[in-house]
Amino acid sequence: MAPAILTTLATEIIIPVCAVVGILFSLLQWALVSKVKVTPSENISRGKSNGYEDELLIQEDQEDGVDGYNVVIKCADIQNAISEGATSFLYTEYQYVGVFMVVFAILIFVFLGSVEGFSTKSQKCTYDVTRMCKPALATAAFSTIAFVLGAITSIVSGFLGMKIATYANARTTLEARKGVGKAFVTAFRSGAVMGFLLAANGLLVLYIAINLFKLYYGDDWEGLFEAITGYGLGGSSMALFGRVGGGIYTKAADVGADLVGKVERNIPEDDPRNPAVIADNVGDNVGDIAGMGSDLFGSYAESSCAALVVASISSFGIEHDFTAMCYPLLVSSVGILVCLITTLFATDFFEIKAVDEIQKALKNQLIISTILMTAGIAVVSFIGLPTSFTIYNFGSQKIVYNWQLFLCVCVGLWAGLIIGFVTEYYTSNAYSPVQDVADSCRTGAATNVIFGLALGYKSVIIPIFAIAISIFVSFSFAAMYGIAVAALGMLSTIATGLAIDAYGPISDNAGGIAEMAGMSHRIRERTDALDAAGNTTAAIGKGFAIGSAALVSLALFGAFVSRAGIQTVDVLTPKVFIGLIVGAMLPYWFSAMTMKSVGSAALKMVEEVRRQFNTIPGLMEGLAKPDYTTCVKISTDASIKEMIPPGALVMLTPLIVGTLFGVETLSGVLAGALVSGVQVAISASNTGGAWDNAKKYIEAGASEHARTLGPKGSEPHKAAVIGDTIGDPLKDTSGPSLNILIKLMAVESLVFAPFFATHGGLLFKL
Amino acid sequence: MAPAILTTLATEIIIPVCAVVGILFSLLQWALVSKVKVTPSENISRGKSNGYEDELLIQEDQEDGVDGYNVVIKCADIQNAISEGATSFLYTEYQYVGVFMVVFAILIFVFLGSVEGFSTKSQKCTYDVTRMCKPALATAAFSTIAFVLGAITSIVSGFLGMKIATYANARTTLEARKGVGKAFVTAFRSGAVMGFLLAANGLLVLYIAINLFKLYYGDDWEGLFEAITGYGLGGSSMALFGRVGGGIYTKAADVGADLVGKVERNIPEDDPRNPAVIADNVGDNVGDIAGMGSDLFGSYAESSCAALVVASISSFGIEHDFTAMCYPLLVSSVGILVCLITTLFATDFFEIKAVDEIQKALKNQLIISTILMTAGIAVVSFIGLPTSFTIYNFGSQKIVYNWQLFLCVCVGLWAGLIIGFVTEYYTSNAYSPVQDVADSCRTGAATNVIFGLALGYKSVIIPIFAIAISIFVSFSFAAMYGIAVAALGMLSTIATGLAIDAYGPISDNAGGIAEMAGMSHRIRERTDALDAAGNTTAAIGKGFAIGSAALVSLALFGAFVSRAGIQTVDVLTPKVFIGLIVGAMLPYWFSAMTMKSVGSAALKMVEEVRRQFNTIPGLMEGLAKPDYTTCVKISTDASIKEMIPPGALVMLTPLIVGTLFGVETLSGVLAGALVSGVQVAISASNTGGAWDNAKKYIEAGASEHARTLGPKGSEPHKAAVIGDTIGDPLKDTSGPSLNILIKLMAVESLVFAPFFATHGGLLFKL
Repeated sequence: MAPAILTTLATEIIIPVCAVVGILFSLLQWALVSKVKVTPSENISRGKSNGYEDELLIQEDQEDGVDGYNVVIKCADIQNAISEGATSFLYTEYQYVGVFMVVFAILIFVFLGSVEGFSTKSQKCTYDVTRMCKPALATAAFSTIAFVLGAITSIVSGFLGMKIATYANARTTLEARKGVGKAFVTAFRSGAVMGFLLAANGLLVLYIAINLFKLYYGDDWEGLFEAITGYGLGGSSMALFGRVGGGIYTKAADVGADLVGKVERNIPEDDPRNPAVIADNVGDNVGDIAGMGSDLFGSYAESSCAALVVASISSFGIEHDFTAMCYPLLVSSVGILVCLITTLFATDFFEIKAVDEIQKALKNQLIISTILMTAGIAVVSFIGLPTSFTIYNFGSQKIVYNWQLFLCVCVGLWAGLIIGFVTEYYTSNAYSPVQDVADSCRTGAATNVIFGLALGYKSVIIPIFAIAISIFVSFSFAAMYGIAVAALGMLSTIATGLAIDAYGPISDNAGGIAEMAGMSHRIRERTDALDAAGNTTAAIGKGFAIGSAALVSLALFGAFVSRAGIQTVDVLTPKVFIGLIVGAMLPYWFSAMTMKSVGSAALKMVEEVRRQFNTIPGLMEGLAKPDYTTCVKISTDASIKEMIPPGALVMLTPLIVGTLFGVETLSGVLAGALVSGVQVAISASNTGGAWDNAKKYIEAGASEHARTLGPKGSEPHKAAVIGDTIGDPLKDTSGPSLNILIKLMAVESLVFAPFFATHGGLLFKL
Repeated sequence: MAPAILTTLATEIIIPVCAVVGILFSLLQWALVSKVKVTPSENISRGKSNGYEDELLIQEDQEDGVDGYNVVIKCADIQNAISEGATSFLYTEYQYVGVFMVVFAILIFVFLGSVEGFSTKSQKCTYDVTRMCKPALATAAFSTIAFVLGAITSIVSGFLGMKIATYANARTTLEARKGVGKAFVTAFRSGAVMGFLLAANGLLVLYIAINLFKLYYGDDWEGLFEAITGYGLGGSSMALFGRVGGGIYTKAADVGADLVGKVERNIPEDDPRNPAVIADNVGDNVGDIAGMGSDLFGSYAESSCAALVVASISSFGIEHDFTAMCYPLLVSSVGILVCLITTLFATDFFEIKAVDEIQKALKNQLIISTILMTAGIAVVSFIGLPTSFTIYNFGSQKIVYNWQLFLCVCVGLWAGLIIGFVTEYYTSNAYSPVQDVADSCRTGAATNVIFGLALGYKSVIIPIFAIAISIFVSFSFAAMYGIAVAALGMLSTIATGLAIDAYGPISDNAGGIAEMAGMSHRIRERTDALDAAGNTTAAIGKGFAIGSAALVSLALFGAFVSRAGIQTVDVLTPKVFIGLIVGAMLPYWFSAMTMKSVGSAALKMVEEVRRQFNTIPGLMEGLAKPDYTTCVKISTDASIKEMIPPGALVMLTPLIVGTLFGVETLSGVLAGALVSGVQVAISASNTGGAWDNAKKYIEAGASEHARTLGPKGSEPHKAAVIGDTIGDPLKDTSGPSLNILIKLMAVESLVFAPFFATHGGLLFKL
């Protein structure tokens, strides 16, 4: 077992350098976006052009009879309102997050500290009993610190991502006056800020934490990387707030705004008279940007931790091979560089000239990043790993070759691409599945819903096979370490994935702002085209998030089982089987809760919007301004309050099952929730995405077939709107929230594994 | 280990006697139903009364201006049309069933015969290698015979059940003229014919088969009961045709009739002008009576076989204790007697006088049968079993006491009751969940669908806990034998369960006939009340069928694992895990197929109905008769054709997975499909049931709240109709069909287990 070609020193340099490059690149993108001014230029205000091309383009807008000066002022106003709403949501959320973090940090410390009765003496190591390891109390303390670090990193990345998104939406609108290409670049760059900040921060903080913890742990890598798992739990807990809380926020505002605005008052979407319109736009940022970001950050942190904890008891850890140990971090480092090059293809190497190039440019991002990353993984695998080594495999050590690990990472990476493409096929209205759903609207809303549900069910098949093959390959080659690095492979292009994903809500907001600012039809068409492409990429992003969540939770599950000292999880024992069937039920329970939460929160919004329309004189006529702030506050408060029951279900299940029924039943619950939850999540997301795009297909009327179903307001269109409304909570709240259910339960079990293994299973002990 | 109190001779007498008593009782019920004449009486035809009370009651009807003579003639006509349609469906189906049976019988013989290369020499037994057992070729032959026997028993019972149902519907309508009590008794007795015939036939044929096979097998009980498992496969394969084919038939006709009749032509449900109206009524019998019957018969046959095959390698079989070996059959025998007494409570001991007593009477049937059966199980367990014995537990023998087995059966029985009550709570409009769904119709169809889906998800929680507890108790006490007898416990009151369930479609048909025959409003109100109660019991029946299917498939899974010689099914191996996740996906794939099948079949029906309305002059005006036969034929052909893809998925999956990937992966697939399928099935059934009853709640307008939502044709009512239409395929096709998916894959794996264990896993062997 020759050591890796890459020296420890080189590793110590490469990782932080890549992370810093990522951060600098995201700041550069931010600076470029900042160049677009949201203050009206002198020339436009006077209604004459100074001869520059850009100004000429903008001039066209004014010729449509729209006053350029006022438009810019309005855009700036709306952007401020959205930005303030988003910030106010985040600050309210952080108060609860703060309380949660303190309570949960104490819980971690007490539970883990109690494993050896809060003893400060060194103990025999769990795996290598011939050596001495640091006391459990130290691991409790460091796990708590890692937890806080993970949580804070997630919060900071999410906060900055949302800042840039709300900073960029009006800029995208204004750039749309100059053409679709400029607007696209602005929106995409802003998405990239979020993507790179998150990927680079996540890597850097994790790397620093490992190095600092090593000062105390020294050669006790087993304890060191046990403590590091707290980082994953921290990231994932914040994802609970981001994904579930954000998901409830965005749909409560959206559904609430639509039910009164579109249905009762018959005013268009994004109409500034609707008091909930700002809340709706804030929701796009809260749910799709901060929520998605925290979800993927959680996955990234968790899969890294799962890989590290298994590596620490494999030959890497036993032989203290730092470079090999850092293999997961090296993969992520190369990922940042690959994504950086990929981004340039969208922003600099090529220019978007027509509306129909947008979708292709975004899809190319996925393909380019995957191809480049394959080469990147090859390099890292051959210089960062010994030719052969052993990996811990539930009680024994398994010999693995570096080319096998290369394949493990690749299979995850390519499975992600396949899932992305399948999701696109089932949710984009360029293909027959969505067109068939649109066609079924002819016979009414009922057939639309039946066909949509069937489409969602069907869309599960290929992704599950892709996940199953990844699992089989990586599991067979390198046991649970293989699964963890496969998950990392899927997440290695996270910066590009997030950039594409965040691009969606930014474009959506840009369209909303254009509507509210009363900009011309031409501008609105451009932002609509940006938005339509964003809709599909949002669905791809969700598919990607679910796929990686499945691999991550399996890796965490494996790490939990290893750490809890279980050697088999036998379905043929009653303890495991009841765990399996109850675990498979949890996604349904959780979805019932999140769907009800959206319903209740939307109802509160409906009441407030109705109240404003009834009590504010001149609101319907556009003479008075609605009270946007109250609506934002209602969405904020309702979403935080409504996330408590589903949040409690996720957080308490592992604690209760582990404490009362023990690790075997908990293993069953985790496996059951994983295999059942991934199906519910994929089908819910794709059903919702398909309904949304079936409606858009009818509205756009771009083909002969589509025109027979339209126009807006026709009976088929009404049926399509019903499907779209049903799909909203499915695709933006209950579906994606399931990622959190399966991941968070797994990482929590992993962190608390020593406690459950020592004190768990009270009910059976009695 | 003292022998059982009951002697072998007593066992040999009790079982067939109980079965024959059951058959005689069902014939008696049939005779009583026959007393109602569907030929007009002389007096009525002349318009005068002969003074008897019944005739006086009927007279009232005539005073409403309805011509009694013509009404009876019309009822007889419609009944004949429905009966002919149902029979024609069955005969068409039997042609396909015949081909299927021959092919599959050959397959069984070839696969099982090949295990030892078609050798006719005796072989060492699988479990007790010190003894000699009959050759695998004999087991192949006898398994094939058992398969054919199971299939034929299912067909005969289903055929007779449907005959009596179509024989009883017009009789129920006519009895409704005399009062709700008389009509109730007629419908209930007819349901009882089906229930008792099925339970008694199933028991008798199984008993005879065991005794005949014993003539050849002698002391080789291991081989004998291996061969008997073919009986379960036969019963279950017919359930595929009954449940899936019947489910597609009934909803294709229903949705097709509604889409043209109610939506396009604006004529009421069950209007005789609608060409699909007879097909719709036939569908109720095909789907809900023959389908449900074959499903429960399959469960009954499978759980008996699973129990017997495990018992044969436990101390019962090793020591050749015939009475103990027949314990599962003794439980079923007592069940027939218990159900007989229970039936008298509904038909003779009490009389229904008012409409609101119906629901209570049906619910009491469940409670009475469960309480009586608990006593029955106690008796059988204490006289039919030794005080202690050993049960085969994946490689070892586990000591079990008779009181433990008593608890195993009881826990299944009572779990069934709990599932029934929970289903009632979530689907009856007497409780808040359905009322909330109805209330959500105020804000339109979208909120109705969201609330309905959330209700279905929520309704999964308690049934899963009930199933999990049953599994835990019975599994802990008596391993897989415990699970099998728990399933038998749940099914021990099958005669009563089926009577209640078959009562529903008979009443539904009776209402349809009253409408078509143009009977008075008063009669229609009575049949509506009968039908409303039947709706809830149908939902209860479905819950019951799914619950027992879950236990049965687990028992079969255990028997498969035992027979395949696997000792652990470890989730921590890639082979098992990929099976688990792909298995959990299968219910979604299968549901997508069945939902699409209903859609395609309904579309064909829509075209035919439209064609008739357009081409038959005077049809809309009621001057010409529609061509019912063509519609019946379309439903028949479409349902048979459309069931091929889902049927192939079910039948081929175990064969392909077992042959290519081997028994470990197949174990994973079975476990995954089970834990995921049961959730999808329960939620789909209950969501559909809730939507149906939410619509009925608004239509009936029985409370202040309900009246604010109505009347028929109001916006909330329209939203409720959309929900109801979506629910139709969920609750009557895709949901219940999943029972077949999970059971049939398990029993098929069990039957082919020796082949897979010997020749399976080709892909991994390469």
